Amino acid sequence: MRAAAAGKAIFCEKPVDLTLERAKACARAVADAGVTCMIGFQRRFDPTFHALKTRLAAGEIGDPEMLIVTSRDPGAPPVSYIKSSGGIFKDMLIHDFDIFRWILEDEAVSISATGSCLTDPAIAEAGDIDCTAVTIRSRRGRLCQINTSRRAAYGYDQRFEVLGSKGMLQAGNHKPTEVVAATGHSVSQDKPEHFFLERYRAAYASEIAHFFDAVVNKVAVRTTIEDGVKALELAEAATLSWRENRTVELAK
Amino acid sequence: MRAAAAGKAIFCEKPVDLTLERAKACARAVADAGVTCMIGFQRRFDPTFHALKTRLAAGEIGDPEMLIVTSRDPGAPPVSYIKSSGGIFKDMLIHDFDIFRWILEDEAVSISATGSCLTDPAIAEAGDIDCTAVTIRSRRGRLCQINTSRRAAYGYDQRFEVLGSKGMLQAGNHKPTEVVAATGHSVSQDKPEHFFLERYRAAYASEIAHFFDAVVNKVAVRTTIEDGVKALELAEAATLSWRENRTVELAK
Amino acid sequence: MRAAAAGKAIFCEKPVDLTLERAKACARAVADAGVTCMIGFQRRFDPTFHALKTRLAAGEIGDPEMLIVTSRDPGAPPVSYIKSSGGIFKDMLIHDFDIFRWILEDEAVSISATGSCLTDPAIAEAGDIDCTAVTIRSRRGRLCQINTSRRAAYGYDQRFEVLGSKGMLQAGNHKPTEVVAATGHSVSQDKPEHFFLERYRAAYASEIAHFFDAVVNKVAVRTTIEDGVKALELAEAATLSWRENRTVELAK
Amino acid sequence: MRAAAAGKAIFCEKPVDLTLERAKACARAVADAGVTCMIGFQRRFDPTFHALKTRLAAGEIGDPEMLIVTSRDPGAPPVSYIKSSGGIFKDMLIHDFDIFRWILEDEAVSISATGSCLTDPAIAEAGDIDCTAVTIRSRRGRLCQINTSRRAAYGYDQRFEVLGSKGMLQAGNHKPTEVVAATGHSVSQDKPEHFFLERYRAAYASEIAHFFDAVVNKVAVRTTIEDGVKALELAEAATLSWRENRTVELAK
Repeated sequence: MRAAAAGKAIFCEKPVDLTLERAKACARAVADAGVTCMIGFQRRFDPTFHALKTRLAAGEIGDPEMLIVTSRDPGAPPVSYIKSSGGIFKDMLIHDFDIFRWILEDEAVSISATGSCLTDPAIAEAGDIDCTAVTIRSRRGRLCQINTSRRAAYGYDQRFEVLGSKGMLQAGNHKPTEVVAATGHSVSQDKPEHFFLERYRAAYASEIAHFFDAVVNKVAVRTTIEDGVKALELAEAATLSWRENRTVELAK
Repeated sequence: MRAAAAGKAIFCEKPVDLTLERAKACARAVADAGVTCMIGFQRRFDPTFHALKTRLAAGEIGDPEMLIVTSRDPGAPPVSYIKSSGGIFKDMLIHDFDIFRWILEDEAVSISATGSCLTDPAIAEAGDIDCTAVTIRSRRGRLCQINTSRRAAYGYDQRFEVLGSKGMLQAGNHKPTEVVAATGHSVSQDKPEHFFLERYRAAYASEIAHFFDAVVNKVAVRTTIEDGVKALELAEAATLSWRENRTVELAK
Repeated sequence: MRAAAAGKAIFCEKPVDLTLERAKACARAVADAGVTCMIGFQRRFDPTFHALKTRLAAGEIGDPEMLIVTSRDPGAPPVSYIKSSGGIFKDMLIHDFDIFRWILEDEAVSISATGSCLTDPAIAEAGDIDCTAVTIRSRRGRLCQINTSRRAAYGYDQRFEVLGSKGMLQAGNHKPTEVVAATGHSVSQDKPEHFFLERYRAAYASEIAHFFDAVVNKVAVRTTIEDGVKALELAEAATLSWRENRTVELAK
Repeated sequence: MRAAAAGKAIFCEKPVDLTLERAKACARAVADAGVTCMIGFQRRFDPTFHALKTRLAAGEIGDPEMLIVTSRDPGAPPVSYIKSSGGIFKDMLIHDFDIFRWILEDEAVSISATGSCLTDPAIAEAGDIDCTAVTIRSRRGRLCQINTSRRAAYGYDQRFEVLGSKGMLQAGNHKPTEVVAATGHSVSQDKPEHFFLERYRAAYASEIAHFFDAVVNKVAVRTTIEDGVKALELAEAATLSWRENRTVELAK
């Protein structure tokens, strides 16, 4: 808010804030100041995700009907971090909620979330969970399922797939090399890239180039603070759904 | 029930019945008669699914935590069939509910289902849906997500994956040949096998051999009528969850 | 020859004979008797190879220019077998020579072969080699390379690829299941089918059905004794090329 | 030679020269001057190739026995370039000859090369060919086959595989994204990276970093001018083999 007041261009990592109220106040401050403000949803700039989106928008698989998102970290952060993270939905799934909105170009009407703590009891003691299963219905009746975990022994698992009326587009994991080893046991390839710094290296570079482009050339940013607010709304609704064990309707 | 009364060995396709009450009565009749009764959950006999289950049981990926099931038909049956099918959960997902129980060796405590009709309005007019998104919680806190559709333009899509504490096991689609074509457009492979007769050809052969083995050698069947009843319970609960838009708890 | 003289339909495994002279005499006997005679080049009936050939013939990759054949056994047969096998070119590569003729629909003008004994000195003592590298030029200037080994620790490796003016078609290995395992080490799939009985199970069934069809319905066989003689010519020329360390020209 | 005389560190693209004599003179000049001289065999710095080499050296597949190299350009350069290129073996395969020496850590004892002109008659008129098939025997009896083409409609095809006593390591193509599209026709992925600037982007960066490291920190370069001379020897021998249609023995 100070940056907006000072008329500075803003690059803000997710989430905009841990409370929806303050996030909305930030959005208003940005709008009032008329400054450039970009949210760090770097996944939209990932070469694979971006290519999929482009092909989907070009009609390659017709109308999208279902979106399945798999989003798993290689390991959980320290519990001290988790305690101040806002919970798994605001900390981790906020990216997946943005993927839902970006890929389907649609808004949620209801969300149903559940989760468990299966990897470390200390996470449960901190009031959080480490794996979740979320279902979102969109205005146009499309269905989205998101599954996440704080632990995937095989690395950073970042996939999604869109089922459309004429086919399916899948975004697969990236891996460090294309070596294939065939032995007496199996035929094996590299694990996925280890974590977000490796997987989204190209995305981060493209993202920040876009921000500079927006600032210098007055181009509209592709990930606005409104996108950040919308994703946070979904994160709050998912948290509520999980806590109260019920489907939550979203205001229109 | 007549076959049980007559002391005959029984091979019964799913579902046991469209109502849970009658299915349970059948199970009692089978138990009273002491006859062999096997339910046609042929997927358990699929080479890929069976190998995955065996490796999971051997501890290859530690304790299972999440199960993601993708189950899509190449195209919807005639609406006349749908009208008498018992609905998508009893007709189509009953196989996926059996996969849940078989793979996780666990029972559901709650189920949350939603769905849409996106491919053909006549299905909605018949009171049914053509795509679903289901989430199941198990007694041990494991999470299962199932996504289904009556239409996949690229063929019969039958996959599932299990995330465990030490890794992941995925069951991929089978395809007719291993030809790869590289052209100016892309590098492409065969679509999945067209439908269940092609995909589960080996499974059907193995299943019926198991039935004969059970009858002749008095071996216990691997897919009992109790399995059929349990899957139907999940189908009924899912139907209720979808109709009333709420999470349904399952009796212990 | 006795079967031909008796007017019987003949199904003959490769090679027709270990000497070209006798193989040609057999071909004459078959022609004179006018009986059906089919050679067991079962690979032509493999679903993957057959589909590739069909797509190639349909022009999917334009004119074929290069053919690369990889043909490796999981392990060497006993040396006692090798001693009476006619050598690796007649015993093992004869199938690959048939692939060359069948896929390119062209004949060899020259062949250059070399080899080594790397897996077991007893094979060298028996006068044979266990791995080979062969290059064939065709009448139309197309190039074919064949690499073989008696030992592949990862199973039966049966691949080939055709480079054409508009793309490439590859025939990959078959594997028992479509399970994928992701662990802390790698992402792995099944090894190829173990050996020819597993890999060519479908091919053998299709092959023998074709033979019955040829006998009953007087259909021309797809693998004639002339094909057997031609492949044997290549095997003899390759043996000579290897022994004399020179390129061997083939009679037109 | 002027740079060596001036005591400058030298980074030299392949080939060192089009004649072996002058290349050797350059090597002597470099040795006499004691300057750093690195040859631009960037493929050794490719992440996939480098990882394969490291794993091979660590014994993952036992002793290497066969090496199969596939090296195809997306399209031929202008004939004007071809005329002054030294021919396909010095211009294009020199990289593959270096791969042979680097991967097997062995030297050639004989080489047999053939080729054709299949894509453009103007190349033949210029005295060159556009596709080749080469076989190399190493001192330890290992076999290497190289197949190349000036034209691959599907992009830059840069693969090799090593068969060892305990398994196989394959280096596959890189592709721009990990999008998979499933449609009514096929399941397709991206073509390989278009050409060397795209495929070897990471290799070039790593290569030049290594050169700076060598210059600044007096580290030995990994691709010496001797490597450049040795690869050129193989290119000359291959050219001779092709022209005279015979196996060429290499001096020890």
